[in-house]
Amino acid sequence: MIFASDNWAGASDKVMAALTTAARAGGRAYGGDDLSRGVEERLSALFEREVAVFFVGTGTAANTLGVSHFARPGGVVLCHRHAHINTDEAGGIEALGGCKLAGIDGRDGKYTADALAARLEQFPPGSVHHGQPVLASISQLTELGTVYTADEIAAIATIARNRGMAIHMDGARFAGAAAHLGVAPADLTWRAGVDVLSLGGTKTGCIAAEAVVFFDPARAADFAYRRQRTGHGFSKAWFIAAQFTAWLDDGHWLDLARHANAMGARLAAAIRSSGRARLAVEPAANEIFAILPEDVAARLRAEGAVFHPWSVETLAPEDRPSDGETLVRLITSFQTTAEAVDEFADRLAA
Amino acid sequence: MIFASDNWAGASDKVMAALTTAARAGGRAYGGDDLSRGVEERLSALFEREVAVFFVGTGTAANTLGVSHFARPGGVVLCHRHAHINTDEAGGIEALGGCKLAGIDGRDGKYTADALAARLEQFPPGSVHHGQPVLASISQLTELGTVYTADEIAAIATIARNRGMAIHMDGARFAGAAAHLGVAPADLTWRAGVDVLSLGGTKTGCIAAEAVVFFDPARAADFAYRRQRTGHGFSKAWFIAAQFTAWLDDGHWLDLARHANAMGARLAAAIRSSGRARLAVEPAANEIFAILPEDVAARLRAEGAVFHPWSVETLAPEDRPSDGETLVRLITSFQTTAEAVDEFADRLAA
Amino acid sequence: MIFASDNWAGASDKVMAALTTAARAGGRAYGGDDLSRGVEERLSALFEREVAVFFVGTGTAANTLGVSHFARPGGVVLCHRHAHINTDEAGGIEALGGCKLAGIDGRDGKYTADALAARLEQFPPGSVHHGQPVLASISQLTELGTVYTADEIAAIATIARNRGMAIHMDGARFAGAAAHLGVAPADLTWRAGVDVLSLGGTKTGCIAAEAVVFFDPARAADFAYRRQRTGHGFSKAWFIAAQFTAWLDDGHWLDLARHANAMGARLAAAIRSSGRARLAVEPAANEIFAILPEDVAARLRAEGAVFHPWSVETLAPEDRPSDGETLVRLITSFQTTAEAVDEFADRLAA
Amino acid sequence: MIFASDNWAGASDKVMAALTTAARAGGRAYGGDDLSRGVEERLSALFEREVAVFFVGTGTAANTLGVSHFARPGGVVLCHRHAHINTDEAGGIEALGGCKLAGIDGRDGKYTADALAARLEQFPPGSVHHGQPVLASISQLTELGTVYTADEIAAIATIARNRGMAIHMDGARFAGAAAHLGVAPADLTWRAGVDVLSLGGTKTGCIAAEAVVFFDPARAADFAYRRQRTGHGFSKAWFIAAQFTAWLDDGHWLDLARHANAMGARLAAAIRSSGRARLAVEPAANEIFAILPEDVAARLRAEGAVFHPWSVETLAPEDRPSDGETLVRLITSFQTTAEAVDEFADRLAA
Repeated sequence: MIFASDNWAGASDKVMAALTTAARAGGRAYGGDDLSRGVEERLSALFEREVAVFFVGTGTAANTLGVSHFARPGGVVLCHRHAHINTDEAGGIEALGGCKLAGIDGRDGKYTADALAARLEQFPPGSVHHGQPVLASISQLTELGTVYTADEIAAIATIARNRGMAIHMDGARFAGAAAHLGVAPADLTWRAGVDVLSLGGTKTGCIAAEAVVFFDPARAADFAYRRQRTGHGFSKAWFIAAQFTAWLDDGHWLDLARHANAMGARLAAAIRSSGRARLAVEPAANEIFAILPEDVAARLRAEGAVFHPWSVETLAPEDRPSDGETLVRLITSFQTTAEAVDEFADRLAA
Repeated sequence: MIFASDNWAGASDKVMAALTTAARAGGRAYGGDDLSRGVEERLSALFEREVAVFFVGTGTAANTLGVSHFARPGGVVLCHRHAHINTDEAGGIEALGGCKLAGIDGRDGKYTADALAARLEQFPPGSVHHGQPVLASISQLTELGTVYTADEIAAIATIARNRGMAIHMDGARFAGAAAHLGVAPADLTWRAGVDVLSLGGTKTGCIAAEAVVFFDPARAADFAYRRQRTGHGFSKAWFIAAQFTAWLDDGHWLDLARHANAMGARLAAAIRSSGRARLAVEPAANEIFAILPEDVAARLRAEGAVFHPWSVETLAPEDRPSDGETLVRLITSFQTTAEAVDEFADRLAA
Repeated sequence: MIFASDNWAGASDKVMAALTTAARAGGRAYGGDDLSRGVEERLSALFEREVAVFFVGTGTAANTLGVSHFARPGGVVLCHRHAHINTDEAGGIEALGGCKLAGIDGRDGKYTADALAARLEQFPPGSVHHGQPVLASISQLTELGTVYTADEIAAIATIARNRGMAIHMDGARFAGAAAHLGVAPADLTWRAGVDVLSLGGTKTGCIAAEAVVFFDPARAADFAYRRQRTGHGFSKAWFIAAQFTAWLDDGHWLDLARHANAMGARLAAAIRSSGRARLAVEPAANEIFAILPEDVAARLRAEGAVFHPWSVETLAPEDRPSDGETLVRLITSFQTTAEAVDEFADRLAA
Repeated sequence: MIFASDNWAGASDKVMAALTTAARAGGRAYGGDDLSRGVEERLSALFEREVAVFFVGTGTAANTLGVSHFARPGGVVLCHRHAHINTDEAGGIEALGGCKLAGIDGRDGKYTADALAARLEQFPPGSVHHGQPVLASISQLTELGTVYTADEIAAIATIARNRGMAIHMDGARFAGAAAHLGVAPADLTWRAGVDVLSLGGTKTGCIAAEAVVFFDPARAADFAYRRQRTGHGFSKAWFIAAQFTAWLDDGHWLDLARHANAMGARLAAAIRSSGRARLAVEPAANEIFAILPEDVAARLRAEGAVFHPWSVETLAPEDRPSDGETLVRLITSFQTTAEAVDEFADRLAA
């Protein structure tokens, strides 16, 4: 009953097999190998256009470098108030990009185009004091397990582009979002206006496989230097390429995500019908936010369930727990079994 | 006949087996797992004192973060003019630590305590204009494949410490140096005055396994934040821990290094006796710098040998190639076979 | 009728006379001159303890360098949501200190110790993801022209210190606050827990005279390097020292502030009694925030009054203008005449 | 007999008069005033093209911000080994621009186009490890008091431009160089290929008046944000504008420089004919480098002469002092009197 995070999971057998094969051979260093080039081709095919791909080892690296690439002096990055880049990356964009992060409020982990437009009013064009907005970032999945539709993304991107801003997508759980929405990856990204994507494999069955994907390769100029000087250029880059190769083969990435999502739905259904807990947010994929009586949460933990408490600040005031209740996050993964979910359901309802 | 670099090699079977086992299980994220804790214990045992260990993914990350940790305003980092941190890391320490790098001349890739003392005279104490020396870095192996003895390290460290500086060792090939010298790791590091070590497994049989090792854990305060905000904190940290576990088990790391060194010695002997080439530097381990007639180098490459040209700037003027000659670097690894070396030797002498 | 800002004013005659005298003589560079040393002594006397003083040229420099001096990796700086450092310095602390700024809500431009404590809960100790709070900053005067009492400062400082944080005061208008409160400077600063003060002369009668004042000189170590590498170390430092000398002589600084405050009070009284406008915030010194009918504001501007519109976001929702009204900021200075205020009052009431 | 530095001098009476007048009036903040706009027009006229002008308070600020404006990831800035930006600015460009500084050797404080080309070979195009050259900087006057001719500048700029680099000129003593060469400022700058100039008034009769001058205003985009976030945007910008106005009026800047240069020539002549000392470098303007017997230097100091010792590293080996000799720097200024020079000459020859 481990629902702590999808980064507590191991790696899929197919991913490991590909990695083991690659490790026997080795290859040219720093991405000069065939596997690395192959992944760029596969992602170009997947996204239906030529993309520039840069491997890094963590999602924080992908976000921090991908966003910082669009930094300018006095730069301001707009994102949801509770975006991972704003609350969980130890100030990476501030430190590496020298940017200010400006949070936007919004229910269920999402912000709207209107909310972005309103926030931008606080940064009047040309004011050297306030700084200049350079990028809007959205998370897909969001930090509350919800998704943006392609139309919602396009609306946000239009507002941003009108101010000359770039659009970044934190896709640490992009696979889960794509599996849920059933929409072509291109429609969720560049066709909706996204310039740069942090594409995460780690939370969906890889060990450490993240990529910064630029939808216009011309805008990736100098990014290789940016990556290298921050120590994110792996000499044995085939190690990430091998993982991505297996991950992308035959839709393995979507299969992994679909399993996690199915387990998430199973868990959500159990909570809905439990009579003892409720969903704080309607889930789209593998992140479930639930409100439980504190004693029930304590009992479940004592019985072996592992899940994190979550800040009630992330919810709108009207959605927050009452006295005696607690907000928790439960995450399923490609390794989560139906048995584990059912055991949790049984114990919850007991 | 691949002698391009030890980062062109794959990973050892033992390392991969450990990684595969770990990947089946997964574990607590961000280093909370048992394997991660275990590696810290093993390294404490290896170094004969309690050490603080921080995994990162690349040697550039280890160097950049480890050195930047000692940065102060106006900080100056002293190192050999051709140190990897000065010539091959795309300005990482400048960018992340805000420090100036001040190169020191020295034959065979090494600098002396006297040369350090002379260089320090250009940074008079208290001069806000010149900046303040904060750290001296040495590479073990050096970038020319030579080693510092424990006494040489201690002499450098004494000069540095008298100016209040920290001492960093770039140990991307520490295993090769330790195997060659046959000296206890503690004697090569903290007993000689080293404060922080970039310990590299990647070039000696791992996929991507590097660690910043602080010999005084109290001096590692805040380093976890420094690592996290630069995107170097792996969620599935067991992925590095598993590699290091196998690497350290039963002296596997030294066995891997000894093999690479033996192949290096075999290659060096072949060059010495070839009648067609000569060693530019007397090698200690697995990096061989040779001077060949240009036509011989071209022929060997045409016959399938892979090796890099090297800048003659790295040699003292009296050691440089004559007209018609070229300086090349050949590196052996744990995967190099005697057959490959012998084939090279035969073709060289032909 | 110039009420745009106190930085639209010139410089006091006494300040200019001192500067002219100093400019005839010149002096040792980089603060080695007698005037510079003298200012440090005077400020030590004024603050009733030995302080370390570093001149810089702007308030943004003082704030950015003074706060960044306490930066640590993953550092978070807490301040009022509308603090100058958060909204008007183009991301200086983010860029130079690599810190995240976390805004705190609070009425009338002030935040409370309780609000600070609540905000700190979002940064749990030891969480490398969220980062670590390193400093709390307060503005005295605040950006809404109000003041903190010594007790309020002490309460905030206690909360901050319990988390190991430093306390910074943005004293761009410290003179106005001190003149209003009639409290010893020491009571408003170090005795209440302040570690570092940005002391501003520019808005109170100088040309460009700002200082970073450390109340514990030992904590100023390396600050001279920090200042120099950012280009804030003036070679002719006597140019700032001469201004501060005249400014501090015979309480000139307080006289200048008292005049500005008196003009502010006269202006506030006029607004209160006008029947056409109201105060948005009860003023303490020379910053007056008023709510006017839009047509009245337009008429006043057409008649020659100069004042800035102000963001209604800075007010609590219940304090904001109604439809057809506008929020404006009016600032008086040492140069403001009673005649100008009275003319404004007459035109407002007309 | 103060020959310590031209930044020990005061300010010219005309400059102070203009400043005093401006200080009575005050004006719109942050460069919105008439004086500030006027200086931009005057400099456009002086340089015979439209330029973009940004005031800052120190030469280090001008250099650091002006050079950093051209920074890119992995950026390398090439300059003379002993350039002020490399040896006297506490690592400002490293810290603010994240660039590596790569020094070039060259006699008499100058480097040649050929030397630049040779140094660039160490940064092969496209190598992410070595980084990418982004800018070449030259000092005019150089740090050894010599000048580059327009042709020499053009030759350097051609090499730099062929690698896509920008060209910066450190003109802390540009007035002295222009006065000596008698060449139009345009010929020494943009017509020879210079993109950005640090134009210094401080060392030639101002208190604190420096400007970053972009010869193509389009390339100055975002510079205002860069200046603001580092605290270099003065609210009372007229304070610098007033100084520059007087400085530029009727060629006052060249008159000030010519006097300093004449005093430098008088001092040089005295040294040449003294029989006790010799010039280490043939001077062009107001910086005189002389080699004296150590006992003579000591005696002169005891008799009241003030001058700095200088590092012999700045000289070519064949130009260095012999045993018992010392290298010193003597600088004249607009305030230096012929009497002071003659007294020094008499005492030297005594």
